[in-house]
Amino acid sequence: MNTVIRKAEKRDVSSIRKLIVELAEFEKAGDQVKITERQLEEDGFGESAFYQAFVAECDGQLVGFSLSFVRYSTWRGKMLYMEDLYVTESHRGQSIGSALLEKQLDYAKESGINFLCFQVLDWNQPAISFYKKYDVTYDPEWINGIIPVR
Amino acid sequence: MNTVIRKAEKRDVSSIRKLIVELAEFEKAGDQVKITERQLEEDGFGESAFYQAFVAECDGQLVGFSLSFVRYSTWRGKMLYMEDLYVTESHRGQSIGSALLEKQLDYAKESGINFLCFQVLDWNQPAISFYKKYDVTYDPEWINGIIPVR
Repeated sequence: MNTVIRKAEKRDVSSIRKLIVELAEFEKAGDQVKITERQLEEDGFGESAFYQAFVAECDGQLVGFSLSFVRYSTWRGKMLYMEDLYVTESHRGQSIGSALLEKQLDYAKESGINFLCFQVLDWNQPAISFYKKYDVTYDPEWINGIIPVR
Repeated sequence: MNTVIRKAEKRDVSSIRKLIVELAEFEKAGDQVKITERQLEEDGFGESAFYQAFVAECDGQLVGFSLSFVRYSTWRGKMLYMEDLYVTESHRGQSIGSALLEKQLDYAKESGINFLCFQVLDWNQPAISFYKKYDVTYDPEWINGIIPVR
């Protein structure tokens, strides 16, 4: 199949949001997606973009995406945090996920960033197997907290 | 004691780095701190600052700090990620940690950001007890991975 991996454009935000919801449903958190297409459009493009996204397009449809932002580590300085990497079920097994991850690694390299970090669910065995190729190390001791701002 | 909580300035980076190392040593990872004072100075100040830091100063010495950056969540949009919150041992029990966290919450509010997120080590009971005041929820299923960029 003709799958093209390319930088995301504003016209992609509606399809990207659908894929975000698909991924959240797989993570048993479909009801957690509060982001709007407008936020995605405002935050991802132009001079002050907060994230970088790449998409996989096959026969005019988006079938996968990867999305990252620059995080700041007081141990290592700037790191690329890959927030999402997703390929829709019908298009798995074609190395599209690897290609989308490679785009983020290339972006990191061009930006002088030496590490890419991410999170996986501890029960997501397909993802854990996928990342084995990439010399990954895990820090299972850290737990994530979230506080509402009032 | 006269403890002042204020925004970090360039002249603070040497003291901040010392506190970063103290915190990493407490986390049994003192050898993980690769960041330099120069990086901290270049990355935290001016128009394109990657992080926001507040410091606690007592009798001319820095005794604590909090440091955050804006992360991007595909569920919620912009969130404030508090990378570090630390008070040196001799100055604990004086609500300095709360004051440093409040500064980050105020910053989030001023920036239109609705959630502050952070990580703690699962064995760090003093920290876990501290955050109980703040309506925190935890996501213990997520594990952190890191990939070197080549």
